[in-house]
Amino acid sequence: MFAEIITIGDEILIGQIVDTNSAFIAKELNKIGVSVYQITSVQDDEKHILQALHDAESHADIVIITGGLGPTKDDITKHTLCTYFNDYLVENSEVLQHVETLFKKILATPISQVNKNQALVPSKATVLHNAFGTAPGMWMKSNNTVFVSLPGVPFEMKNLILNQVIPKIQKEFHRPFILHKTMITYGIGESALAERIADWENQLPNDVKLAYLPSLGKVRLRLSTKGNDQKKIETIIASEVAKLYTIIGDLIHGEEDDETIEEVVGKLLTHKKMTLSTAESFTGGKIAEQITAIPGASIYFKGSVVSYATETKINVLQVPKSLIDTYSVVSGQVAEAMAKNVRELLKTDFSIATTGNAGPSKGDSDEEIGTVFIAIATPNGVFSEKYKMGSQRERVVQKSVYKAFEMVEKEISKI
Amino acid sequence: MFAEIITIGDEILIGQIVDTNSAFIAKELNKIGVSVYQITSVQDDEKHILQALHDAESHADIVIITGGLGPTKDDITKHTLCTYFNDYLVENSEVLQHVETLFKKILATPISQVNKNQALVPSKATVLHNAFGTAPGMWMKSNNTVFVSLPGVPFEMKNLILNQVIPKIQKEFHRPFILHKTMITYGIGESALAERIADWENQLPNDVKLAYLPSLGKVRLRLSTKGNDQKKIETIIASEVAKLYTIIGDLIHGEEDDETIEEVVGKLLTHKKMTLSTAESFTGGKIAEQITAIPGASIYFKGSVVSYATETKINVLQVPKSLIDTYSVVSGQVAEAMAKNVRELLKTDFSIATTGNAGPSKGDSDEEIGTVFIAIATPNGVFSEKYKMGSQRERVVQKSVYKAFEMVEKEISKI
Repeated sequence: MFAEIITIGDEILIGQIVDTNSAFIAKELNKIGVSVYQITSVQDDEKHILQALHDAESHADIVIITGGLGPTKDDITKHTLCTYFNDYLVENSEVLQHVETLFKKILATPISQVNKNQALVPSKATVLHNAFGTAPGMWMKSNNTVFVSLPGVPFEMKNLILNQVIPKIQKEFHRPFILHKTMITYGIGESALAERIADWENQLPNDVKLAYLPSLGKVRLRLSTKGNDQKKIETIIASEVAKLYTIIGDLIHGEEDDETIEEVVGKLLTHKKMTLSTAESFTGGKIAEQITAIPGASIYFKGSVVSYATETKINVLQVPKSLIDTYSVVSGQVAEAMAKNVRELLKTDFSIATTGNAGPSKGDSDEEIGTVFIAIATPNGVFSEKYKMGSQRERVVQKSVYKAFEMVEKEISKI
Repeated sequence: MFAEIITIGDEILIGQIVDTNSAFIAKELNKIGVSVYQITSVQDDEKHILQALHDAESHADIVIITGGLGPTKDDITKHTLCTYFNDYLVENSEVLQHVETLFKKILATPISQVNKNQALVPSKATVLHNAFGTAPGMWMKSNNTVFVSLPGVPFEMKNLILNQVIPKIQKEFHRPFILHKTMITYGIGESALAERIADWENQLPNDVKLAYLPSLGKVRLRLSTKGNDQKKIETIIASEVAKLYTIIGDLIHGEEDDETIEEVVGKLLTHKKMTLSTAESFTGGKIAEQITAIPGASIYFKGSVVSYATETKINVLQVPKSLIDTYSVVSGQVAEAMAKNVRELLKTDFSIATTGNAGPSKGDSDEEIGTVFIAIATPNGVFSEKYKMGSQRERVVQKSVYKAFEMVEKEISKI
């Protein structure tokens, strides 16, 4: 069973926004056994949209369309669906009532004819209730393909996908079972890894796909397959994974489900009833931000001192000025003092500290760009590691944040 | 002149990664007068890629392809280009030398045959030097369409786009001039705005496109046009903008270039030689992170106290416990104390403080989910505002961060 995703909007094609909707939709569809054949972003242009709908119908059982459902003239998805389905718009009384309620209760502004037009839907469409907005989702069937039109506003779209579209697909379609298994390897590069597992790769069953996903000092290996017999495909994947362990067991450091490393850290801390704080220099609060993006982080995260300026390290974190003068602000000694002191200041079990040069200029230190120190303080002491993270500012920060989570995860696991 | 972007990789279609490359490429192409007709994400599958190349050739003068250039078996872009162009791979000695140097100097690992294969390119391709990786960019011409193949690794791709692809397009193609002008309006919703400017919208020249971009309590209006005569299209847009000011001058609060609000704040502070700090509760360091993502932020940003736990507000920020007991931790009084104290602690001219309930649970306060207080301290005093930001955790944080930057921008501008 195949799906296609079509995103409509000039803002995507001029690079004004990044299309994050498609990845969300693709992930949710995959979970219920629907493979995405293609993602296509098209302009707010009737001919172009019609062409995309036509192409999608030729390879997909279900086509998810986002965008172009606003009340203004540049939004033409509904009219285009009418053209495609040889249909016309009718007022849907339930949607109208919902729109009127939204304006009265939430927006507290008078409703106009343009707003009321949000209740117009193609006569052949089944309406999907959009609890958070005025544009309803629509479900339409043409020959053997279902077309689902959703608003492009991410939180409205997400709610519709999770609460309306996915359950309806599960009810109406017979779907295979899709299985992805991702193993995380460290220690050697993509090509050296490929050479070590070449024989194994060559003997893989035809319907098992292997992908190499190199990133941030590791290579993830993803095995994917699908089939109607869940037990059978689980057995196939398990057997291939077992073989892989005999070949590169020394390189595999864990398997990946959908959890991010900060979620793993959060679960560990929650489970052990322990707490964390951070003292961040060049990472600028990004570690704290990633921790607090998880609901429930307040149970284990007490806070951070983002000591971007050297004087903040001295004044707030009480890092001795003499230490900075002796070893420089980008040093293992300073990182360790930051970690130790923030752990005491915020009264936590663990702490992370970072100091480094992310570039583009050298800042308050002589260390070259890309040199960073990450320190971890635990109930048993404090230590730091030095890394060279390259010369791209954004990547230096990203890689360091990831590395910091890896280091602290290891320490929390030990206790 | 039209371009198409094709991104290759199963990881996009299973939702394992968000395709951020396309927005970057689209934006850069737009700047030099190249419109993107369509963005298509396809699987690591030869037939599928060939179909996408064929479709793209039918509407585009230039096709930018990313991904599928790694050294492992799942990467098939080079072979597929050979099939499409009826070509074969040849070893490029300059690329080989570069790959050997990378392995020797940077990676310090022995080079294998698989790595050396990175130097194989289609015989008809012009090689584009990839300074940061082993996979070269490739430029190939079929009839009247140019195909450019680039690695999918974002920082390698970005460098190739900026330093190789864009200059080569500028040299080899005659391009029109594209102009986008975006005005920011506050105060009324998308549909009410549409009604107020309906007559103006109806009289717009045919080749001027108008888009409504509602977000975070504002609606941006984007006018776009293109043409060969830069002067002429600038005059057309300027005249339409002038008319718009006479109709909704009361609603327009600034025009947008590509600057983010945190960049505007950074420029203001740099210009005035003044400094900023933040004290963040529910925003968890996101304000600090957005500030420090800008190179040069160390000039004006001294740091942040992320006081996620109530006790951190008391211990580090010295917010009196009695104040919290009297007014609750989510209150204007506490926000103001946080702003005032972090400004003193970090010795800055301005500070931002946030406290609120982002949900999903209520935390240490009785205020309902989505209620936030943002305080700004300046050399002239401190004040706070209360907002209701809805019930979606991520959006509550996002909207509050944006609002905080707006508030502080206004105050910095006054001084």
